[in-house]
Amino acid sequence: MSKQERTLVKALAHQVGNDVTVKGWVHRIRKLKTVAFIVLRDRSGMVQCVCKPSLLEGVHLGNESVVSISGHVVVQDERCEIDVEHIELLSAVHEELPIQVNLEALDVQLDTLLNHRVLGLRHPKENAIFKIQAALSQGFSTFLRQHDFLDMHSPKLVKEGAEGGANVFSLDYFGEKAYLAQSPQFYKQMAVIAGYERVFEVGPVFRAETHRTRRHLNEYVSLDLEMAFIQDEYDLMAFETQMLGFMLEWVLGTCPNELSVLEVSLPAVPKEIPVMKLEEAILILKQLNHECDGDLDPEGERLISAYIYEHTGSEFLFLTHYPISKRPMYTKPLNDLETQSFDLLFRGLEITTGGMRIHQYEQLLDSMIKKGYDPNQFTSYLEAFKHGVPPHGGLAIGLERLTAQLLGISNIRRTSLFPRDSERLTP
Amino acid sequence: MSKQERTLVKALAHQVGNDVTVKGWVHRIRKLKTVAFIVLRDRSGMVQCVCKPSLLEGVHLGNESVVSISGHVVVQDERCEIDVEHIELLSAVHEELPIQVNLEALDVQLDTLLNHRVLGLRHPKENAIFKIQAALSQGFSTFLRQHDFLDMHSPKLVKEGAEGGANVFSLDYFGEKAYLAQSPQFYKQMAVIAGYERVFEVGPVFRAETHRTRRHLNEYVSLDLEMAFIQDEYDLMAFETQMLGFMLEWVLGTCPNELSVLEVSLPAVPKEIPVMKLEEAILILKQLNHECDGDLDPEGERLISAYIYEHTGSEFLFLTHYPISKRPMYTKPLNDLETQSFDLLFRGLEITTGGMRIHQYEQLLDSMIKKGYDPNQFTSYLEAFKHGVPPHGGLAIGLERLTAQLLGISNIRRTSLFPRDSERLTP
Repeated sequence: MSKQERTLVKALAHQVGNDVTVKGWVHRIRKLKTVAFIVLRDRSGMVQCVCKPSLLEGVHLGNESVVSISGHVVVQDERCEIDVEHIELLSAVHEELPIQVNLEALDVQLDTLLNHRVLGLRHPKENAIFKIQAALSQGFSTFLRQHDFLDMHSPKLVKEGAEGGANVFSLDYFGEKAYLAQSPQFYKQMAVIAGYERVFEVGPVFRAETHRTRRHLNEYVSLDLEMAFIQDEYDLMAFETQMLGFMLEWVLGTCPNELSVLEVSLPAVPKEIPVMKLEEAILILKQLNHECDGDLDPEGERLISAYIYEHTGSEFLFLTHYPISKRPMYTKPLNDLETQSFDLLFRGLEITTGGMRIHQYEQLLDSMIKKGYDPNQFTSYLEAFKHGVPPHGGLAIGLERLTAQLLGISNIRRTSLFPRDSERLTP
Repeated sequence: MSKQERTLVKALAHQVGNDVTVKGWVHRIRKLKTVAFIVLRDRSGMVQCVCKPSLLEGVHLGNESVVSISGHVVVQDERCEIDVEHIELLSAVHEELPIQVNLEALDVQLDTLLNHRVLGLRHPKENAIFKIQAALSQGFSTFLRQHDFLDMHSPKLVKEGAEGGANVFSLDYFGEKAYLAQSPQFYKQMAVIAGYERVFEVGPVFRAETHRTRRHLNEYVSLDLEMAFIQDEYDLMAFETQMLGFMLEWVLGTCPNELSVLEVSLPAVPKEIPVMKLEEAILILKQLNHECDGDLDPEGERLISAYIYEHTGSEFLFLTHYPISKRPMYTKPLNDLETQSFDLLFRGLEITTGGMRIHQYEQLLDSMIKKGYDPNQFTSYLEAFKHGVPPHGGLAIGLERLTAQLLGISNIRRTSLFPRDSERLTP
């Protein structure tokens, strides 16, 4: 191998005895009288490089400098090392580092971490989060493609897509008022109705919610799917159970190092996730002295999850039969009060909302009116229901929430690469 | 197999002699005195169903009704047919169809097609476009994952991400002015610098351009990649060449039926795509009596593509050495006038812009100032360049453009599922 060709740290074991060039960041540097030790970090790992101090003369090296190091691969204490012959500075550091990324644990406030996001992400524990997140979304896509779903792209600039008035960002669109899509809901339904039958999308959604909590972002990534010709919401729940199992297997298979860096072991997805009516959950919570009015609050979600874990060993729980009053107008009713919809709780947090959708035109029109919407605001969405619509349903998973719950991360901002909340638009 | 279980049309060949249930749309219906023929269409294909007229009594069937048909699979003239035993209407059609989707070719104006997008997409030729588009984006992602790229999600709501002032949508973000990202450029660079080295994103980008042309959309899907530790733009061009070959192979392998429906044969990507300096192209165009000033206009792109095709047989052409004045401020200069950047033309249209980026802090600051930007508007982007930055570059491909050029579709609106232009925000 020529010295010019770059070798990744993870491939050094195959190069023992050879001359190589590695490139990356200086994770740590220690200069002694007769020898200097540089730990070089690249995207694949870290390697210690052993260097005569004379080679560093005139090279302004510090932590996080980017370097190219050529040398001989040797094995020391069962680990690869590099006997440095040449070192070149590719990019210097211009100021004292606001975050020290070579400590075992990042010892900074969340705001500091997010203000200096690019630097902070170099810490192996922060870095690993987004490799696992990518594996989750890749597992999602792979499973759905295997099941004949179409990878679709819905518009984010919409006129009709806004379901709720208050939580929506609006903007001027060539003199017209446009909104940022709160979900791809209408468009994934329309793609199903257009004949694709099964569609999915991994994409951004926007919520103009003003409250700042540890579990909300104003822009997040939604894993959405919608499918036709299913019987009821139990088909969806069985499908999601299978899919989550696949996704976690995918992470296990592709991210063993990242899981070990984060000291996380993934939960088992039960073959059948426990299912409970919302009403029943509310009754149990009442017995636990926690009152909920019609839907669960965050504390209610935590308590009922803990209860189910205690009684079944499952960290997942489907809640069903949500009341019509708590669900969007396109949700299919089961009777006068309840809908054919569900939430999935995982470790005390809702990570999925899903359900059957109304597929009959008159029923949809009726539901809109009952919910106080003006059907004239939904002309093109409604048109789709006039020309033959299969029964269908779907669900959405918040990618950041799923990542956070899986990895035991308490604030969702840490599982968004560049998070957006009401006080943060940068970096 | 139970009658309740649904069989896809494409799987009928394995069910000859059996009773099945198929579900889908009525593509065509012909009632004679003693027999009725229903062509049923599902996501996998079409099948003729032969039916006693008595079975249709009281069933209000028309084109595009959604039905469930149970019957016996037989072979007639080497094709599967269904001898209908039972037919159930799942969803009716509520008005005269504004588009007839069972004609060989859709005989409607583009605006009509887009106004009734959901219905129009049921035509096999329109339908096939987005299966091929999904395969292109899947090929892109697959190739990049194989090459160790991280699937990233950048924010679309940005404060600093706007490169040009005029072409950007703005909105109120909790009292602050935010923009919709024109590209993930800054964020993919920051993710590279954060240590991921190689990242990609498939996501929406927003351009507030007022001109309406056949090749512009105000929201489109960008296939973006960015990679570190490369030598120069020729590394990127070689990488893209290999990637495009992979993507087209992927389409060939996964969409043979769709290509045949559209009567399209894919071009070969040459092992080496011809490379020409922009200046040279301008000179050749001058000899062809077409004057261009500093960059190519649409006609210039068509002419130089035709010229190269004539001389080399390649439908692809890389143009290099774009002047600094025509490139964004983050583009790496080659000398005082030219940059290390390129465009890729395909069949007369630019489908990629790419190049090396400035990775040194002072040079970036200098370039910003020279281009007339206020560095204070780019604080968090600039900070990323203070703490060790590898040499890097990247490129972006417009998914709708690539789809259109591949399939010989002249207006890009047809290759966007729900297109957005200055006069269209619905459906």
